[in-house]
Amino acid sequence: MLGRVNHIALAVPNLAEAIETYTSTLGASVSEPELLPEHGVRVVFVTLENTKVELLEPLGETSPIAAFLARNPGGGMHHICYEVDDIISARDRLVAAGCRVLGDGEPKFGAHGKPVLFLHPKDFFGTLIELEQV
Amino acid sequence: MLGRVNHIALAVPNLAEAIETYTSTLGASVSEPELLPEHGVRVVFVTLENTKVELLEPLGETSPIAAFLARNPGGGMHHICYEVDDIISARDRLVAAGCRVLGDGEPKFGAHGKPVLFLHPKDFFGTLIELEQV
Repeated sequence: MLGRVNHIALAVPNLAEAIETYTSTLGASVSEPELLPEHGVRVVFVTLENTKVELLEPLGETSPIAAFLARNPGGGMHHICYEVDDIISARDRLVAAGCRVLGDGEPKFGAHGKPVLFLHPKDFFGTLIELEQV
Repeated sequence: MLGRVNHIALAVPNLAEAIETYTSTLGASVSEPELLPEHGVRVVFVTLENTKVELLEPLGETSPIAAFLARNPGGGMHHICYEVDDIISARDRLVAAGCRVLGDGEPKFGAHGKPVLFLHPKDFFGTLIELEQV
């Protein structure tokens, strides 16, 4: 069911500082910042040869990243996004196996304009999993 | 400097349960367990199309994963491993930029028998970074 790792997402308290570190210190290529108000984040993508790292900064008062950063003020690893061919069939299979989908269980549209869902980290050993239909 | 994402490592309290979840529930392919006593872990690799997820279970009394699981009893995202061409030149560049290398600063040999180093998470917004020379 799981396809490619689309991205690994890291929450950071200050996106400008993180861009500087990934560009200058780590020598990576970083995209222009994008605002995703419906997800409560400002994001950039670090382009690696085989996948991407998404750097997330909170946007707005109710950002889910703000709550994460309150627990991890310096930042931290936030989620892994796996690609799936059919997000509805993937969801139905997971729900049938007893896994919990976050929110209302219906896909939202992610940073790439594709349908995404998040799975409860308690069902996956503390790792928040995003599924993206590609 | 950063090449491919070699793997994303997730700490789990019980490797057998995690293997079952990744195999049956998520439909992924998982390698046979390997013991790495010098790193204090028992590991499997989940094979994805473009990279791998490493599942880590503590091995021995002084496992670094045991300390992580004491803070995160259900498990959690532990580190990202990036490939580099030359680990000594990468280390020297990072140290010159003020970054801290864990341990004595000399490469150890990782799960693939290749030289690896770990960078202090406080220098990278709470994310533990492993570098592996390939």
